[in-house]
Amino acid sequence: MPTFLGQNQYGKAENRVVKITRDGATHHIKDLNVSVSLSGDMDEVHYSGSNANVLPTDTTKNTVYAFAKEHGIESAERFGIHLARHFVTSQDSIHQARIRIEEYAWERIETSDADDVKHSFVRKGQETRLTQITYDGESWEVVSGLKDLTVMNSTNSEFWGYVKDKYTTLPEAYDRILATQVSARWRFNWSGDEQRMPDWEKSYDQVRKHMLQAFAETYSLSLQQTLYQMGSRIIEHRGEIDEVRFSLPNKHHFLVDLKPFGLENDTADGAVYFAADRPYGLIEATVLRDGCEPQIPVDLTNL
Amino acid sequence: MPTFLGQNQYGKAENRVVKITRDGATHHIKDLNVSVSLSGDMDEVHYSGSNANVLPTDTTKNTVYAFAKEHGIESAERFGIHLARHFVTSQDSIHQARIRIEEYAWERIETSDADDVKHSFVRKGQETRLTQITYDGESWEVVSGLKDLTVMNSTNSEFWGYVKDKYTTLPEAYDRILATQVSARWRFNWSGDEQRMPDWEKSYDQVRKHMLQAFAETYSLSLQQTLYQMGSRIIEHRGEIDEVRFSLPNKHHFLVDLKPFGLENDTADGAVYFAADRPYGLIEATVLRDGCEPQIPVDLTNL
Amino acid sequence: MPTFLGQNQYGKAENRVVKITRDGATHHIKDLNVSVSLSGDMDEVHYSGSNANVLPTDTTKNTVYAFAKEHGIESAERFGIHLARHFVTSQDSIHQARIRIEEYAWERIETSDADDVKHSFVRKGQETRLTQITYDGESWEVVSGLKDLTVMNSTNSEFWGYVKDKYTTLPEAYDRILATQVSARWRFNWSGDEQRMPDWEKSYDQVRKHMLQAFAETYSLSLQQTLYQMGSRIIEHRGEIDEVRFSLPNKHHFLVDLKPFGLENDTADGAVYFAADRPYGLIEATVLRDGCEPQIPVDLTNL
Amino acid sequence: MPTFLGQNQYGKAENRVVKITRDGATHHIKDLNVSVSLSGDMDEVHYSGSNANVLPTDTTKNTVYAFAKEHGIESAERFGIHLARHFVTSQDSIHQARIRIEEYAWERIETSDADDVKHSFVRKGQETRLTQITYDGESWEVVSGLKDLTVMNSTNSEFWGYVKDKYTTLPEAYDRILATQVSARWRFNWSGDEQRMPDWEKSYDQVRKHMLQAFAETYSLSLQQTLYQMGSRIIEHRGEIDEVRFSLPNKHHFLVDLKPFGLENDTADGAVYFAADRPYGLIEATVLRDGCEPQIPVDLTNL
Repeated sequence: MPTFLGQNQYGKAENRVVKITRDGATHHIKDLNVSVSLSGDMDEVHYSGSNANVLPTDTTKNTVYAFAKEHGIESAERFGIHLARHFVTSQDSIHQARIRIEEYAWERIETSDADDVKHSFVRKGQETRLTQITYDGESWEVVSGLKDLTVMNSTNSEFWGYVKDKYTTLPEAYDRILATQVSARWRFNWSGDEQRMPDWEKSYDQVRKHMLQAFAETYSLSLQQTLYQMGSRIIEHRGEIDEVRFSLPNKHHFLVDLKPFGLENDTADGAVYFAADRPYGLIEATVLRDGCEPQIPVDLTNL
Repeated sequence: MPTFLGQNQYGKAENRVVKITRDGATHHIKDLNVSVSLSGDMDEVHYSGSNANVLPTDTTKNTVYAFAKEHGIESAERFGIHLARHFVTSQDSIHQARIRIEEYAWERIETSDADDVKHSFVRKGQETRLTQITYDGESWEVVSGLKDLTVMNSTNSEFWGYVKDKYTTLPEAYDRILATQVSARWRFNWSGDEQRMPDWEKSYDQVRKHMLQAFAETYSLSLQQTLYQMGSRIIEHRGEIDEVRFSLPNKHHFLVDLKPFGLENDTADGAVYFAADRPYGLIEATVLRDGCEPQIPVDLTNL
Repeated sequence: MPTFLGQNQYGKAENRVVKITRDGATHHIKDLNVSVSLSGDMDEVHYSGSNANVLPTDTTKNTVYAFAKEHGIESAERFGIHLARHFVTSQDSIHQARIRIEEYAWERIETSDADDVKHSFVRKGQETRLTQITYDGESWEVVSGLKDLTVMNSTNSEFWGYVKDKYTTLPEAYDRILATQVSARWRFNWSGDEQRMPDWEKSYDQVRKHMLQAFAETYSLSLQQTLYQMGSRIIEHRGEIDEVRFSLPNKHHFLVDLKPFGLENDTADGAVYFAADRPYGLIEATVLRDGCEPQIPVDLTNL
Repeated sequence: MPTFLGQNQYGKAENRVVKITRDGATHHIKDLNVSVSLSGDMDEVHYSGSNANVLPTDTTKNTVYAFAKEHGIESAERFGIHLARHFVTSQDSIHQARIRIEEYAWERIETSDADDVKHSFVRKGQETRLTQITYDGESWEVVSGLKDLTVMNSTNSEFWGYVKDKYTTLPEAYDRILATQVSARWRFNWSGDEQRMPDWEKSYDQVRKHMLQAFAETYSLSLQQTLYQMGSRIIEHRGEIDEVRFSLPNKHHFLVDLKPFGLENDTADGAVYFAADRPYGLIEATVLRDGCEPQIPVDLTNL
């Protein structure tokens, strides 16, 4: 045959697992969407259809649910580590495991009961938390992140001094809305079992906080500048992280021209905007700790 | 011609309008999606294509943006009332206006600045707030609501004692998860300009609170029972509302059978669930104040 | 209690059922999404949580799958009729059944084999076919339809002669693109078992054909005019149908202003358009056979 | 600063451009969604917010529309090549351009007119055609593809002989449905202006045909085997292509257990299946021409 097999992987995607933990009458939720991807000695299943080396994707699904009971879900990262280690160490034909997890946050419903209800929750909405665990039997790569966190500054954003060619018609802006829907991934420098594992839950909360604050506190001359501030703020404050990548759509809010109706629409006075869907600017970049090598793929933030 | 024209309406749908209000350095957002639908003396445009009675949908869009500046957006309801009144009273050919509005909530980003940033926001996610204003030149109908508010009780839900026919295989459940994604609409009894208008913002917050509390506090023998409690709680506490309708999907969380792996998966011990997408139970009902007539259409909660 | 129960219904929604029929080596597919909604003597389950009158939604799901085997799926309409009749006639507490079905079309993959492969299919995409069967034990209502059928005329559309108020800025158009994504529902006049049942498959194909041809062949002065032509064409040609309702978004294609770049963008010469997402015009109307009463709800075409 | 900038790119995403070409009364459509991504000497805009090297994303949008008029759209690939060359050669600060394009197919509406209507179209639905053009001023990379092409074999698929560990419960299958939603990307070996350019339109049609036929004609022992056949068939027949990558979700169709209702559900007799949404198997692999190096990123088929 004049063709050959390149990179390949397989597994069960989007296993929706909800784990309740009961601490007396107080319940806790972990709500995950877990995708397993395995690779290794899989040439034959592609070439001849022999499944002799193939652990069924159905089995990887079962393992996700069984592990949720056996190990609990302390954090998405730790759960993914359990799973990845299991697949690589229990099957000779599997040389690498990649676990991707989405996590949906819930908050408690406040009730009027004197004696509080502690088993009632409302889904938080807002961002989806993400992690990706990769293990090859020797070293670990953990890339966590989030998507669909929509933020806006209603002032302190300008855009001017740019290149003008024959297709340029955009007027310069000195007070505009800056809005984006953050997709971010950050890579931990934890890579080996001999190292102390980060506190994944605390790390997430702190990264999210620094990212939001950098967005809010940066007086912005371009979305690229804001992006870089968001990334460098994370790396400066969080020693466990070496690399951050963002895809930031510039969610345009256009000042509506109300002059035909005899109305001024000044930003200083509180303006009216048209929130556009498409097209949108798309700003993407990686921010790295000095001395570190990039490892986050260019399109990971677009998944 | 052997055919004739029935009910008809037209307008511009999904006008995305963002209004910033500046109170010194403190900014406020209203973020709406406004759909205008007009009807009246419109036979000719259907029969012959004559647009002599047709205010262009483009004009209805312009009006939305101009009104956001002229009147501000105190609440979605009040904004919709301004628009509906305008269309019906300014054009002879328009006899009825229906304004549908979606509202997206934002909350402030907390910053570390001594001197706080007050122009930075993160979209709240969670539910979308809704309202529908209908005006025929004489009386008003206001139906507000919400969709995509996902809630869960991790216990205090049972399901047993039901009809069993030859196609019934479901085992009875004495401790199950009850989860749903609330779509609700409630109708105000305000209908005339001579009546005092409700405080729309406060009303929304209170309805939402009572609905969530009723969900949390009801020991549930069926989702229908929970639904009825949610509706009646609203009507009991909010005198401005006469009718509530819900569409509540029963978002099934199935106990995973872990016995093949030598594991118990008892609810009392904190169980592992598979969160299913489809199919789902769908429970729909209207709850009314004594003496009131239903007016909310059956499928409004499915839009 | 100062509240009471209004209209209510329940059932299992979105049962995804695929039925293969084998005719030797030649296979046929029916691919449906079936939603069951039952109503009747259901006060107690809302008021007290008693399920004594409640056939579980899980049972309605089982029934869908069992009936697909027992009766086959000749057409979505006929399948829905089997289901509706069963629920109403087999349970005293169920007085009405409404079955909604989406159908996805598949076409055969053409192969190079001398001896053709007859079990390979590619999903057709394009519109989703719809039907809704309602039965109260005495009479039937069948409303079929489709959604997501996107059509475009690249000429033979004008828009002028409309009302101009102070918010009107739209220039008149004498050669524009007319594009819409058809959502249509049509009601059959078949209502009783003693009447001869229409040929549902043939009827669908013919209605679709007449609707598309009316769209293509109408020189349009407004989308309303085109809508009316589409509806009346159906009623004129199909005696089994008394009423048609449409929701037609006006999918705007705006001529791009290329003058700043020294380019003409004339329609006569083949123009470049920006295809906008939101806002969009939304034109909705019912067309009826002379002497018939409207029964299709206003928002059915928005589901 | 202890951080530095890594890979970065920017541009306007999702420019929806429709180009009509008129050949007398016969019209032709090209309907594209074009995303521009530029990189080069962009450190300063990230570090300081200086836009001195930044061609605005608004300008890249304008260029897309102007080029659609100036050059027409013969194929998505050729259009992307025009755009990429322009950005890289016209701006010193831009060193690389990547153009991603989605294309939506339309087909003519057949009319009853003696003298045919040639300006009326219905969107084909089915797959979205894709291309990605990358240019660095010296060489070209063209990766085309498609997504959302859903296919099914209703027989000639088995799955057995796999690894069984303690979490394996799946029964072996000797006659199952094999269904997937194809996402594929194929890389052309055309890389320089001195080479003869492929016929992009013909190439797409042929790749699609071979891929569908390979799916239909392969008696499948695993989805991996089918995938490999699809890829190698393309490479064998199309000399202009060196590499193909697939992401193939295994869209599970589960045989429904109808035994509780006294029904057999044998595949040989034409069975009833439950079409599941999540989880799904996900099979991903690259197929290469002998002697060629892989260049398609692992996750490109997941965008």
